[in-house]
Amino acid sequence: TQKLIFAENVLRSFKMSMSLFIHQNRFVEIYCLSPGLQNVGAIHFFCNYEESRGNYLVDVDGNRMLDVYTQISSIPIGYNHPALMKVMTNPNNVSAFVNRPALGILPPENFPDKLIESLLSIAPSGMTRVQTMACGSCSNENAFKTMFIWYRNKERGYANPSEQEVGTCMINQSPGCPDLSILSFMGAFHGRTLGCLATTHSKVIHKLDIPSFDWPIAPFPKLQYPLEEFVRENAQEEARCLEEVEDLIVKWRQKGKPVAGIVIEPIQAEGGDNHASPDFFIKLRNIARKHGCAFHVDEVQTGGGTTGKFWAHEHWGLDDPADVVSFSKKLLTGGYYHRDELQPDKPYRIFNTWMGDPSKNLFLSEVLNVIRRENLLEEVTRSGKALLQGLYALQTQYPHILSRARGQGTFCAIDACNDATRDSIMIKARNKGLFMGSCGEKTIRFRPTLVFKEYHVHQLLNILNDVLAEHK
Amino acid sequence: TQKLIFAENVLRSFKMSMSLFIHQNRFVEIYCLSPGLQNVGAIHFFCNYEESRGNYLVDVDGNRMLDVYTQISSIPIGYNHPALMKVMTNPNNVSAFVNRPALGILPPENFPDKLIESLLSIAPSGMTRVQTMACGSCSNENAFKTMFIWYRNKERGYANPSEQEVGTCMINQSPGCPDLSILSFMGAFHGRTLGCLATTHSKVIHKLDIPSFDWPIAPFPKLQYPLEEFVRENAQEEARCLEEVEDLIVKWRQKGKPVAGIVIEPIQAEGGDNHASPDFFIKLRNIARKHGCAFHVDEVQTGGGTTGKFWAHEHWGLDDPADVVSFSKKLLTGGYYHRDELQPDKPYRIFNTWMGDPSKNLFLSEVLNVIRRENLLEEVTRSGKALLQGLYALQTQYPHILSRARGQGTFCAIDACNDATRDSIMIKARNKGLFMGSCGEKTIRFRPTLVFKEYHVHQLLNILNDVLAEHK
Repeated sequence: TQKLIFAENVLRSFKMSMSLFIHQNRFVEIYCLSPGLQNVGAIHFFCNYEESRGNYLVDVDGNRMLDVYTQISSIPIGYNHPALMKVMTNPNNVSAFVNRPALGILPPENFPDKLIESLLSIAPSGMTRVQTMACGSCSNENAFKTMFIWYRNKERGYANPSEQEVGTCMINQSPGCPDLSILSFMGAFHGRTLGCLATTHSKVIHKLDIPSFDWPIAPFPKLQYPLEEFVRENAQEEARCLEEVEDLIVKWRQKGKPVAGIVIEPIQAEGGDNHASPDFFIKLRNIARKHGCAFHVDEVQTGGGTTGKFWAHEHWGLDDPADVVSFSKKLLTGGYYHRDELQPDKPYRIFNTWMGDPSKNLFLSEVLNVIRRENLLEEVTRSGKALLQGLYALQTQYPHILSRARGQGTFCAIDACNDATRDSIMIKARNKGLFMGSCGEKTIRFRPTLVFKEYHVHQLLNILNDVLAEHK
Repeated sequence: TQKLIFAENVLRSFKMSMSLFIHQNRFVEIYCLSPGLQNVGAIHFFCNYEESRGNYLVDVDGNRMLDVYTQISSIPIGYNHPALMKVMTNPNNVSAFVNRPALGILPPENFPDKLIESLLSIAPSGMTRVQTMACGSCSNENAFKTMFIWYRNKERGYANPSEQEVGTCMINQSPGCPDLSILSFMGAFHGRTLGCLATTHSKVIHKLDIPSFDWPIAPFPKLQYPLEEFVRENAQEEARCLEEVEDLIVKWRQKGKPVAGIVIEPIQAEGGDNHASPDFFIKLRNIARKHGCAFHVDEVQTGGGTTGKFWAHEHWGLDDPADVVSFSKKLLTGGYYHRDELQPDKPYRIFNTWMGDPSKNLFLSEVLNVIRRENLLEEVTRSGKALLQGLYALQTQYPHILSRARGQGTFCAIDACNDATRDSIMIKARNKGLFMGSCGEKTIRFRPTLVFKEYHVHQLLNILNDVLAEHK
């Protein structure tokens, strides 16, 4: 009967999710025999990671796909990269894997060196400190906490907390647990734990039924693409949003819930690949400065080289750097950088058992070596141009199906005319060997690895073209 | 100057933290040369994990210590266990380390088998589902979300959400983001991300300056030890706390913030190793059932065998199992079990990029093999008895210094007369080769590995005895 229940689950969940691949016998077999696996409905297919290589993902039925979704944008240099395999076979590294330390209190001898080699070697301008964490949500949660601590220390003039603060904080009450807020943007995605989720506004399925905070939410600019053809209209839209940001900061201060920080993605990813101009972000940073709010750039999806620079916000040319920059995914470890000024005043204020995982830093060091050795950021810029040009050509050829091609580096996207068409294109492409991701309401997002070359771009465009040509 | 600033940091932070070890030249050197390392103040010392073995941790200056803190209770079978080293050198496993999947959508072929071999083989009674997560905080955050989703689905009679719910949830407002609460206990520790932190009430340093939720907090029984000598008094104290729990549930329902779930540790660890009787927990479970709240047992620190059973709550003999059991630390992966009934109704409601890490499940499978092969739970029971007897003897011998020895398995603790004495005992013990942890206000906690044998107990007791004999 358990088998039967799961077989029913398969059918039910496929109605909600994507329809079956052509060759998926082994998939259905595993799927039906997997009691205890939660969220089976979200599973696209089971993978044979051993057989996957570079940009190509292989499933359990031997289907080989050009993968431009890359585990939700988290595979930096492709599957089974030899440089990463070598990390595993180096006997000096074994201990980092089998003895996971409580990093905050008992770091391994080489941890500072590994940090310097890895995360500190790519620190965004102005960022002198880094704190590793286990995942993207934990990174943003702790980044928010860092901003709250910084804000309250400023407010109390760096004095010790009052007796009342000490007493009330233990029972979740103000002033010890103050009514501070984080300003976020409609369409944003910053994670799904309760603090992060209060700043996430991209899909109902993320938010429904979960208690939240009364924090201000500003409109994110709805720009017209290609950006260079709508400069005036887009500037107006951005000005409207910035005005709203300032209004909200004032309003929430009056409400007694001052904005301690502003959090924003350089490109809203989960929310539908929404871009804004460098000018918008520079002005937003100035607003944060003017009102005494910290400025937090969430690079969990945009970071790691995929936009052609290591950090997407480096495209803005900020004179006054951000206060906090968080990361995860392609960096293989979660964490966040911050300015010296945001360093908590006492140990154990930002703390947990593991605080990251040194074995992930070993992999990251190797990834960075490969990026430098093979000039992968230039490669991304080159491939990205070819990809965006190809998407422009496709939307010109199929204007009734595709529109709003946009991108930076290989971080590209295009809209279908509706969600059903988008889903149908994605399934047909998958059956022809191209695995893509979706975002927003009707957007296809391209999140290839950093070793995605121009000939991969052409392969992608050929398959898409075939699918569109067949599309009724 | 950077070197100078860090040297100053060292001095400043040591005033806050523990004083210097006798032989720590290499430690001070690394410490002073570690710019960008955040929270340096919490660092006890740097470790040489390569040279550490079994129950013995070695620091960078070659000091070798019997470790009964074990990376905040997260090392299950000791340092560099041969069974874990073998996981690393098995070529079949390489792919799991170098290709971290987005588990929720693209699991590896062997993932269901590995789950069955590892987490599902040790599932607590009544738990049919398991969801892996990256760390303890994420586990509890998602467990809370699971309870909220379950509670709201019950409330709306499993109908689709209303238009109003769909609309309001995107802007953090009720009814879409409902005013539900989780009932927790004073002295509890359930993690430090914003949702978890609203249920954590053990130390000011965790809570101060972080916004929180207005959720009910019940008193945790303050029992007298040894438990068997104060049965009547303790039963009265537990009855008082249970009465308060029911009052709070009613009060918060009247406030319009119904209690969706109750979360509790089998032994409050961070809060000072506070125990309660099986009778207390059984009655608490019944109260949860009576009021329609989910019952969540947080086994992040107590789980994994250290109490002599795999899960501490198995000591209670619950007829009506818990609804959710969360874990991390010694399990090497975070996650939570739950009843079928709490399975979310749709995919992607509980979701994130990684949803755990299959490479950690490989290690866990091996840990479980070792536990079974070497009957480690019996070993823990035996060592635990010897440890607790030894602590009783010490507190009889030094009644002006020690009191309230308590424990289950090797999960033991003892109180010093004040925090300064506790800290001084810990430093002196460390200089004699015994590394212990602290918790609560003046408690020493013992969190040895599962391979902690009776002769390790005697070594521990001898060192403690020496320290106490010298204590003025």
